Amino acid sequence: MSIYLNDIPLEEAQARLQEALEAANLWQCLGTEMIPLDEQALGRVLAEPIWANLSSPHYHASAMDGFALRSVETEGANLNQPLVLTHGSQTIYLDTGDPLPAWADAVIPIEDVEPIDANGRPSADPRHPDRIRIRSAVAPWKNVRTMGEDVVASELMLPSGHILRPVDLGAIAACGHDAIPVACKPRVAVLPSGSELVPIGQPVEAGDIIEYNSIVLAAQIRDWGGEPTRFPITPDEFELLCEVVAGAVSDHDLILLNAGSSAGSADYSARVVQKMGDLLVHGVAVRPGHPVIIGMANREDGRRVPIFGVPGYPVSAALTGEIFIEPLIARWLGRKAGSPLTMSASLTRKVVSPAGDDDYVRVAVGRVGGRTLAAPLTRGAGVITSLVRADGIVIMPRGSQGMPAGSEVEVRLYRPPLDIERTVFAVGSHDLTLDLLAQFLADHGRRLASANVGSLAGLIALRRREAHLAGSHLLDPDTGDYNLAYIREYLRGVPVKVLGWVGRQQGLLVVKGNPKNIRSIEDLTRSGVRFINRQRGAGTRVLLDYHMDLLGIAPGEIDGYNDEVYNHLAVAAAVASGRADCGLGIEAAARSLGLAFLPLFQERYDLVVPAEHFDSEHVEPVLQVAKQPEFAQAINKLPGYDTSRLGELIAELE
Amino acid sequence: MSIYLNDIPLEEAQARLQEALEAANLWQCLGTEMIPLDEQALGRVLAEPIWANLSSPHYHASAMDGFALRSVETEGANLNQPLVLTHGSQTIYLDTGDPLPAWADAVIPIEDVEPIDANGRPSADPRHPDRIRIRSAVAPWKNVRTMGEDVVASELMLPSGHILRPVDLGAIAACGHDAIPVACKPRVAVLPSGSELVPIGQPVEAGDIIEYNSIVLAAQIRDWGGEPTRFPITPDEFELLCEVVAGAVSDHDLILLNAGSSAGSADYSARVVQKMGDLLVHGVAVRPGHPVIIGMANREDGRRVPIFGVPGYPVSAALTGEIFIEPLIARWLGRKAGSPLTMSASLTRKVVSPAGDDDYVRVAVGRVGGRTLAAPLTRGAGVITSLVRADGIVIMPRGSQGMPAGSEVEVRLYRPPLDIERTVFAVGSHDLTLDLLAQFLADHGRRLASANVGSLAGLIALRRREAHLAGSHLLDPDTGDYNLAYIREYLRGVPVKVLGWVGRQQGLLVVKGNPKNIRSIEDLTRSGVRFINRQRGAGTRVLLDYHMDLLGIAPGEIDGYNDEVYNHLAVAAAVASGRADCGLGIEAAARSLGLAFLPLFQERYDLVVPAEHFDSEHVEPVLQVAKQPEFAQAINKLPGYDTSRLGELIAELE
Repeated sequence: MSIYLNDIPLEEAQARLQEALEAANLWQCLGTEMIPLDEQALGRVLAEPIWANLSSPHYHASAMDGFALRSVETEGANLNQPLVLTHGSQTIYLDTGDPLPAWADAVIPIEDVEPIDANGRPSADPRHPDRIRIRSAVAPWKNVRTMGEDVVASELMLPSGHILRPVDLGAIAACGHDAIPVACKPRVAVLPSGSELVPIGQPVEAGDIIEYNSIVLAAQIRDWGGEPTRFPITPDEFELLCEVVAGAVSDHDLILLNAGSSAGSADYSARVVQKMGDLLVHGVAVRPGHPVIIGMANREDGRRVPIFGVPGYPVSAALTGEIFIEPLIARWLGRKAGSPLTMSASLTRKVVSPAGDDDYVRVAVGRVGGRTLAAPLTRGAGVITSLVRADGIVIMPRGSQGMPAGSEVEVRLYRPPLDIERTVFAVGSHDLTLDLLAQFLADHGRRLASANVGSLAGLIALRRREAHLAGSHLLDPDTGDYNLAYIREYLRGVPVKVLGWVGRQQGLLVVKGNPKNIRSIEDLTRSGVRFINRQRGAGTRVLLDYHMDLLGIAPGEIDGYNDEVYNHLAVAAAVASGRADCGLGIEAAARSLGLAFLPLFQERYDLVVPAEHFDSEHVEPVLQVAKQPEFAQAINKLPGYDTSRLGELIAELE
Repeated sequence: MSIYLNDIPLEEAQARLQEALEAANLWQCLGTEMIPLDEQALGRVLAEPIWANLSSPHYHASAMDGFALRSVETEGANLNQPLVLTHGSQTIYLDTGDPLPAWADAVIPIEDVEPIDANGRPSADPRHPDRIRIRSAVAPWKNVRTMGEDVVASELMLPSGHILRPVDLGAIAACGHDAIPVACKPRVAVLPSGSELVPIGQPVEAGDIIEYNSIVLAAQIRDWGGEPTRFPITPDEFELLCEVVAGAVSDHDLILLNAGSSAGSADYSARVVQKMGDLLVHGVAVRPGHPVIIGMANREDGRRVPIFGVPGYPVSAALTGEIFIEPLIARWLGRKAGSPLTMSASLTRKVVSPAGDDDYVRVAVGRVGGRTLAAPLTRGAGVITSLVRADGIVIMPRGSQGMPAGSEVEVRLYRPPLDIERTVFAVGSHDLTLDLLAQFLADHGRRLASANVGSLAGLIALRRREAHLAGSHLLDPDTGDYNLAYIREYLRGVPVKVLGWVGRQQGLLVVKGNPKNIRSIEDLTRSGVRFINRQRGAGTRVLLDYHMDLLGIAPGEIDGYNDEVYNHLAVAAAVASGRADCGLGIEAAARSLGLAFLPLFQERYDLVVPAEHFDSEHVEPVLQVAKQPEFAQAINKLPGYDTSRLGELIAELE
């Protein structure tokens, strides 16, 4: 049986789901339970409004430590003409919160009173004097918390659908409740399936996929107020999968089947859904995430349970949660739909989108020189780090084919705006010390967002005022110096400071034992040697081209010269995986993947900082980190680094 | 022993605490534990950075369902000149995620291929054909997720101090971890003490105080990432309290003693702290909340445990949590200090603050006609509803004596800005149907913030463009009609629409049995009858004054004429508590507190809406609610209401 993947628009998929849920009486709160009023109620959703049972205060209470009295008996008292009241009949001492006697209508604070004994001398026990002397009149109901001052019985305290916060619990207790009607938590079964999946913590071989989507989905459900159950991995066996789903359906409100939900050969999800009930949707025009399946499974007792086939790619899976599961859980809890924080920002580069899809583009967001920028991140559905690094999402609606650089877009934020304000935006050359910098900046309350685009693209980003700083190691062939000539050319008219960062060795990365005996740039031209290159504009590429030029080697002579990757670690990964025999890069990258390293050149890697940002709240913490001895120590633990110029002001250019 | 309350500035209190914690080695993360990587890790704080153990993907993986091949062997293929590759030697079928064979360097999707059999006919099994025909060349590494595309082993995945979100858990799993080093949760003991306290759920008498501060504090601690333990109530016995504290100190990281921490007669907290160790602070110049106690208790093993005496007033207690406990827990967790959302707003009325204190003013916040307004709420430290109703806090710093109306202030928000955008701001006369409206508006995704200031003050607020609507029931003595004459006078030049809301009965509220036999306005002048009045500008006050005038009664003839409260329920509460014998008000208020009601007059209560807001997203949902039959039904369940004109457009004035 083959079921065709047929993407339909998001709104149509949502409409089909809603219709099926309405027909099954499931388009509403799933049920109410009474829970005890304690701190566990935090975050639960009120299923009914809370009306006050009791007034608060529920009696007239003294608002001070002092003496209750009849206000009318204090009339005429003043500084020079004190009045004296008899304790017991005309006045009585009260602690804060004590009930006012029926005959009294005001309280005078103890510090405004002279408690005296029968002889007119200061009383030995000021709280139980014989009399009190007062030197001012007291207005009726002064220093009294009258009954109902806070709440009057029968008032609305909180509406249904409200998410309980700490102070709400106090207010509910104050008005006479000791239990709270809340929406039942939707029980959600998360079923990973696929013969290629292995649980976390087990050794992996090529082809094994670590199963973690179920953790992400379960955590999302918990976050949104549901009760997740994670099932063990089910292999790709149709009957077995049907059995597991049938079991889950019996005691859950929602089933998430996370398996190959594309139309590939291991695609059982759609067939399983069809067998268990009705397949409503197979494919939604949303990127990433389109092979979403939606259906309704039948239970033995005649009730129905919605079932989702969640795509296997991690970004697709997480976005399917956000797009479909969050609103459903919100509906079931009766909670108001989430209000995402949004912020407008300017796109740093062009985004191309398929016209037929709603395209969810992950972006890093930062404030640079008064502008808010959204830098699109890697688009791959498999790149979960793009969600980790994302500060928000920009939706390119169906019908649009993307947007040009500089477009104003609305970003749905994943982080509070203040975190965005505190983000240090680094665009430029990649170096492993930037990871260390990120770690150290976190201790200064700053976040480093770094885009590894290469040295030259980093300078261009600075000129476009799209970064606070750029790492750069561009060799000037004429002088043998680094960066300054390029800054003069590409940042003419932009005052910058060049901050010394690290010296590092560039060399050849090869597998251990160096089986092809590659020892020099000349060796790259040998037949049978496959090279992996860096992209144009990268400092390492400039370095290679410089030395090829010196040696008179043409690009066509090196196999793999046009095979480009974007950072040192990707070079190391290409060599480690056998994609190439050799690459040019830094020693630390070689070490981190267990490769051999043949040093060839020493180079300087600087941070280029526009003068306007140098003393800013963004870059200032970077300068502080550069001065921390612990930071230099951490760098020196990496191989091939020299920190002798770390933090030094190498040049100022106008 | 008497210990003097001596307020010190907030920064000094914080400095003393920090110094004592540093001396005790407690100004840092309290410890690290490894926890399994699952959805329970959500919200925990990373105690160490996470570096990738494994690349992701950890092998070159097919990114599509398709055929692996050597890209070089596809050169020259095009639409008119297809190439044929032999399955098995030149190509092999792969599902998405399958590892690329060592000899291949690209994948062509199955949908771009013609799988054929030995005779050149379409293959019966397209995934296991004899050969494939292709009509385009394939670039190297096309449709391959190369090893390390997402993460390369040794990269920084997440910095320490990061709060774990769902996608983070996936990313940590992807890079080869199955356990996470997180900060231990600080264990916090919450100890309520006081002989006047009763647990929730028990019947209360005058003088009993329902103990709920411990619930609020425990919920705050849970919310901030700590592990609270709520202790039972300890009565005011010094030795007993010391014993309980000593027990708590042995297995908690922080003690919150919630008891009379003012200098009143039941004030044991400071003495307890002094006995258990050192008293560092007794009183902080912060309002509300100043009688805060801070100390360090000694444990038998020589370690020290910070101990707070938290003030007993609920608003003070909750703010003490926010000001002192949240930053301490954040410090102990190593999490970045919270970034409160802020918004600037314009104060709707003057705030007077004590110059010596940092004054935390709770405000309701709303957007009216393009302006963001902050309306100060009740200041009383006992009014927990002021925290429930607060949308944020404005801090009047020490040294300032407050701010005039119209000042621009920075509000620390308690709610997301979108909730603020959706707030319907009602200022004016109080009616119980506004509580019902709040409940119904919640279902429309709107929140009603209503300030009960009386009819006339409501019209003035509209003129100052400080509300979306105002409830009003102002009788015009000349015509017998309602509201229109006042609108013409007070809103001249402001186009408004008058929306019919309810008719309701006004009458006398007296205790059941009417022991003083009060039956008319004339009876209010009888000796021994004490009246409770509404404030000037209230519609009910206008009504009373109108009838007093008709009857020739002067204000001085009514005992209590100058004793004013601000809404119907407060009138009812005053009568129910014996503060007065009688008040003028609506039947529903009488019923809700079990009073008798003697109807005197029928009146009209309208909603006055400036034309500029009438069709706005704020007021439109109010119109919708007015049309819902369920809403009229709910009103008609209240006594004394007539809904015949509900939702009718009564007048439009220019």
